Amino acid sequence: MASLFNKVLIANRGEIALRILRACRELDISTVAVHSTADASAMHVRLADESVCIGPPSATESYLNAAAILSAAEITGAEAIHPGYGFLAENADFASMVVEHGFTFIGPDPSQIRIMGDKIRAKQMAVELDLPTVPGTADAITGEEAAISAAEEIGYPVLIKAVAGGGGRGMTVVHDEGSLIEALKLARYEAKMGFGDDRVYLEKYLDHPRHIEIQVIGDKFGNVVHLGERDCTLQRRHQKIIEEAPSPVLSAAEREAIGTRVAAAMRTFGYSSLGTIEFLWQDGRFYFIEMNTRLQVEHPVTELVTGRDLIREQIRIAAGEPLSFGQSDITFTGHAIECRINAEDPRTLMPAPGKVTAFHAPGGPGVRTDSALYSGYSVPPYYDSLIAKVIVHDTNREAAIRRMDRSLAETVIDGISTSIPLLRALCETDDVKKSKYDTGWLGRFLADWDGN
Amino acid sequence: MASLFNKVLIANRGEIALRILRACRELDISTVAVHSTADASAMHVRLADESVCIGPPSATESYLNAAAILSAAEITGAEAIHPGYGFLAENADFASMVVEHGFTFIGPDPSQIRIMGDKIRAKQMAVELDLPTVPGTADAITGEEAAISAAEEIGYPVLIKAVAGGGGRGMTVVHDEGSLIEALKLARYEAKMGFGDDRVYLEKYLDHPRHIEIQVIGDKFGNVVHLGERDCTLQRRHQKIIEEAPSPVLSAAEREAIGTRVAAAMRTFGYSSLGTIEFLWQDGRFYFIEMNTRLQVEHPVTELVTGRDLIREQIRIAAGEPLSFGQSDITFTGHAIECRINAEDPRTLMPAPGKVTAFHAPGGPGVRTDSALYSGYSVPPYYDSLIAKVIVHDTNREAAIRRMDRSLAETVIDGISTSIPLLRALCETDDVKKSKYDTGWLGRFLADWDGN
Repeated sequence: MASLFNKVLIANRGEIALRILRACRELDISTVAVHSTADASAMHVRLADESVCIGPPSATESYLNAAAILSAAEITGAEAIHPGYGFLAENADFASMVVEHGFTFIGPDPSQIRIMGDKIRAKQMAVELDLPTVPGTADAITGEEAAISAAEEIGYPVLIKAVAGGGGRGMTVVHDEGSLIEALKLARYEAKMGFGDDRVYLEKYLDHPRHIEIQVIGDKFGNVVHLGERDCTLQRRHQKIIEEAPSPVLSAAEREAIGTRVAAAMRTFGYSSLGTIEFLWQDGRFYFIEMNTRLQVEHPVTELVTGRDLIREQIRIAAGEPLSFGQSDITFTGHAIECRINAEDPRTLMPAPGKVTAFHAPGGPGVRTDSALYSGYSVPPYYDSLIAKVIVHDTNREAAIRRMDRSLAETVIDGISTSIPLLRALCETDDVKKSKYDTGWLGRFLADWDGN
Repeated sequence: MASLFNKVLIANRGEIALRILRACRELDISTVAVHSTADASAMHVRLADESVCIGPPSATESYLNAAAILSAAEITGAEAIHPGYGFLAENADFASMVVEHGFTFIGPDPSQIRIMGDKIRAKQMAVELDLPTVPGTADAITGEEAAISAAEEIGYPVLIKAVAGGGGRGMTVVHDEGSLIEALKLARYEAKMGFGDDRVYLEKYLDHPRHIEIQVIGDKFGNVVHLGERDCTLQRRHQKIIEEAPSPVLSAAEREAIGTRVAAAMRTFGYSSLGTIEFLWQDGRFYFIEMNTRLQVEHPVTELVTGRDLIREQIRIAAGEPLSFGQSDITFTGHAIECRINAEDPRTLMPAPGKVTAFHAPGGPGVRTDSALYSGYSVPPYYDSLIAKVIVHDTNREAAIRRMDRSLAETVIDGISTSIPLLRALCETDDVKKSKYDTGWLGRFLADWDGN
């Protein structure tokens, strides 16, 4: 096998650094790990062919330190840089610097990262690419009659949003025409008071959405293939904690329809590398939220149902190879679920770093563990609390949930608090078994949960 | 899900006890572990719902102690007994006792175990069932002319075997007609001297065979399905150490042909449960060796390429359920390889029991570990030296070998000697990569291997 790159620098840490390292090893590519002083004995450092310390514990000075990372690549003679997810993965400036310094960036073109990283440009682009977006008035709404007919067209409930608002502030839900005018007046008044700008617009309000996202991969020859969807509806404060494929609410025809539409959009966009287009979904319709121009945490569920190694493929594409499969080669088998295990108090959800006195991964059929833990490892307090992903594959959803439950029961992480008790409680909850939830369900569940 | 059995007793230890326990848990069946005093802190005991000590370390007094096992089943109210492999798994008397005491034996009918456990009856049965066997003279050969024409018909090289011989004694290889008569005289003389019986017969001599076996599963309604083959040619002293599916030497048409023939034979035989029909294979032809009327160590490679959980299916069938799939539902995807990790000196192959100071299983995509090891566990000296199976799945054989190599590189088993260095050396050997070997290859390789 001719090697794609001689050497790749992995600009990340934890389980994803390990995941990329494994892909490189299987492709006969040497690896360079980078690490902060806090991660000197981390697993990704231990398993890499070479490693370079790039700074103190603070991420700003290490994993976000572009200059230090580029120097490490220069010194070690790496040909390409894989950013993983988080840190610099969606930093267009970093991607540009990587390219300008003569390295290959294992990801899309920096200009595409830039567009999709800007929420407003991203939504405009989604409209241009004919992706379904949340219906609303394009401009600020003025007259009462205009508001009434716009709301009618959008369909209740509608959201009145302040043009100058953001981050969840300046939004009012209106459930029927009877309360629209009054709410509009109040919203204008509050917008004026809160933001010094009384302009508001209307948007459809999704009161029980699910989160469904489409995985795509494109090469540098214009080929784009979709790999189906992931359902990531089980979230708390926009943090996904359980993801699955396929979505329990989509039919094969619906999957095919949205997948084809997204792949066509990405072909028009000229996208190459891995990417995920995130949607809210409600009552059979999709609404674009954003696009992640990178590898995602939950990519393994797609790998399990399609049998494709997404990271090896991503590296091949970055090296200029064409996609090794076409759309018709992609089939979906069985059901996969991922649980994110965090180092945290399962009740308060507060991070719980510390020394892992014993670690034992689950085994047997249909179980995959992606984790950088080992017995004796100290989880540092400086980074994300995700410490392990347990991913299972089985013939159907019911079997997969049972397999997940027995896998979590086998998992040993001693010495620190983890979210395993919460994950097990979820596996045993009726709403989860029946997939009866929306993106707000987990927050409501946690409010009542007694921790057992 | 209505439970198949309320409670199953697992009459085994080590990784296979754990494998069965996992299947039970996923089927919502309670488990009873049995153990010798040497295994009181073994993983299968720790993870089972209940456990019963059945005797001292010696297997004869514990894991082979049928009375103690039946008492344990009686006391705990188990409904069925799973024997695993080894120990009592192919003991027809034990299977009969299990049934007579009112328990379900998770395996075939005791009469079928009895037939296939007797080498001579098994071969006669194979002939009756129209399975391909090693060609030879049915009876002892007398005249020189008869010997010459029989050898001609069989094809050289031929083996002269003493009727009273066995266990590898009383066999002479003849490569051409010119040396047949002389060898025949000598073989008769030696047989007379060695066994007091000068009768000999001729059989085809396979000088470069591979070991290829067919996995079947049958239910109690006459349905039998084959799940393709496993190639277990990498053996030392008849001990398999690396197994894979599919076999690198079979075409899809050849797989289909032998699979269909074996499934038909098992249908005629009326076989229910898991079973494996083992063949030697040479130059495109199969030759029956024996049938294993039980689960096999290497079943995971079949699970990975077919996506079927063989043990859950075996338990379902034992409970009287029909097969959950038909022949046309079985497809084969990618390539799977299993490496057996033994607690032994990789050079001398001598068992090396002792305390495992650290255990870390490999992770990431396409890797499965079946093992009862944990950090701090002491491998007892009383039983088989198999301590872990690492099984990988990938799109093709070349990728699977690379994935195996990186998985073995990640595996940590400190404190004792293991066969990992040998397994890694094999993954990096040209003959293995090219699949250029026969059942004698590994013995020759080991004679030259320097341990690195």
